[in-house]
Amino acid sequence: MDKILLLTGDNAAYQSRLGTCQFTDDPEAAAIWLAEPAMAAPLLRQGHQPRWLASTFAGVDALMAGDLPRSYQLTNVRGIFGPLMAQYVFAHLLSQLRELPRYAAQQADAQWQPHPYGSLAGQTLVLLGTGDIAQHIAQVGKAFGMRVIGVSRSGTPKPGFDEVHAIAALNAILPEADALVSVLPNTPATHHLLNQDTLALLPSGATLINVGRGHTLCPDALLAQLNRGALRRAVLDVFEQEPLDSASPLWRHPNVTITPHIAATSFPDQIAAQFLDNLARYRRGEPLANQVDFTQGY
Amino acid sequence: MDKILLLTGDNAAYQSRLGTCQFTDDPEAAAIWLAEPAMAAPLLRQGHQPRWLASTFAGVDALMAGDLPRSYQLTNVRGIFGPLMAQYVFAHLLSQLRELPRYAAQQADAQWQPHPYGSLAGQTLVLLGTGDIAQHIAQVGKAFGMRVIGVSRSGTPKPGFDEVHAIAALNAILPEADALVSVLPNTPATHHLLNQDTLALLPSGATLINVGRGHTLCPDALLAQLNRGALRRAVLDVFEQEPLDSASPLWRHPNVTITPHIAATSFPDQIAAQFLDNLARYRRGEPLANQVDFTQGY
Repeated sequence: MDKILLLTGDNAAYQSRLGTCQFTDDPEAAAIWLAEPAMAAPLLRQGHQPRWLASTFAGVDALMAGDLPRSYQLTNVRGIFGPLMAQYVFAHLLSQLRELPRYAAQQADAQWQPHPYGSLAGQTLVLLGTGDIAQHIAQVGKAFGMRVIGVSRSGTPKPGFDEVHAIAALNAILPEADALVSVLPNTPATHHLLNQDTLALLPSGATLINVGRGHTLCPDALLAQLNRGALRRAVLDVFEQEPLDSASPLWRHPNVTITPHIAATSFPDQIAAQFLDNLARYRRGEPLANQVDFTQGY
Repeated sequence: MDKILLLTGDNAAYQSRLGTCQFTDDPEAAAIWLAEPAMAAPLLRQGHQPRWLASTFAGVDALMAGDLPRSYQLTNVRGIFGPLMAQYVFAHLLSQLRELPRYAAQQADAQWQPHPYGSLAGQTLVLLGTGDIAQHIAQVGKAFGMRVIGVSRSGTPKPGFDEVHAIAALNAILPEADALVSVLPNTPATHHLLNQDTLALLPSGATLINVGRGHTLCPDALLAQLNRGALRRAVLDVFEQEPLDSASPLWRHPNVTITPHIAATSFPDQIAAQFLDNLARYRRGEPLANQVDFTQGY
């Protein structure tokens, strides 16, 4: 039976959920790695290589560096993070729309004071990315009565979206956005896609949410846009450097919400179940599910 | 043309949206009242009566008092409040689940510290009420992957619910609830339905949200339950007396969220559109939409 090397923040949690598997700490003895990408990269760099690397993350950009080998099968996690991402996105959109902090402050003063508010229904949600995470967010947006537009490399129609456009149409779509949510992976094509020129196309009442990768967004361009009063709010869960430097002006900007890369956390229960499913395919010699295409990086 | 009496908090907003109608301030000259229930009740009590009273609210309990006439047609507003109620319910459920206030406090200290969290997916949402407002909440719950159980007088199946049970089964269902949301109207049958006995059946990790009417919930029983640590949180938008007395211990309870009856506000645009639609029916002599049954009170 092929042995498994665990490279995660909580190996004990995986061991208890993968009871029938055999584990090893020796990368040379392990045909299969179940690993966080950033923990696997140094071993790959040292010349070790599995037959199959099962990433416990959706984002595998840490494995895409040019000096790393690509002659192994790489799978990532899909279908798990979508619901969590959707819950994060709508927690923040709705808390802002319905002014939860303002009412909490009023409650502390026993103050009964209603304020007018708007509705998500009829608003336009623009999603950068149309994969399974974006589809979950789109589905919830539709349940709230939003118009949902997706933007992807190809512009191929996907379930849950009212429209999907190719990235070439981005500049025409950004002015429509009441909320712009990026779930894009970190690839050369997405680097600083949200920059001075593209951010300037957003309506001043728009909310930007980045739950994909920090590299998609140019932080200086964001701060300039916010400081011009040309963007309502940015909700940022991912950054070019993580943890975000405590000296970053983003932390204290009144129109920025910072969270520490928690939009979708890997719960071992769900990831272990998906891994076991794929392990059965591996043992039967069948093609693995959720394979990553090294040429695309996702 | 039948004249219309406006009895709302913002009559000018309705006049501008109902441009072709004729208005009067004389209740005797008006066959039609477009009115907030609590503003119409005193005129009814004085002996005035329209042929048709179009309530701008969903809840018409202020018109159900035993000394008020019932020999007029009463309609209420439907289909408008559901999306707003759903946005309120999930704003509060998600803000709590994803600890938005905790992360805001960390941000103020430039502190990067993730915390574990759960998912709505797989949780059970119990809705007291299965009408159009509850159906909107159910639909969003399903989009988030929740199991959605409805409780109604009859137990008749309704779209969007995994199960609907008659009120007689309430005690068997409450122990299932991760979230219990009441959208019940104020009727004799719903008075203090949530009392010491029924609240005790909720799991200690449950969240109670009342967006229906205050009379459904016994506040002393709620406080006792919270103080025993036997309920995670109560989110209350409606109260037996509104505004809530500033001396109420609910204001300062750490596990209670108070909002000033804002879960679904009447936006004149939408209500005027629904009124005009019904006015056309009225003028054609057709049955009105959204008629209230005086024997049920909704």
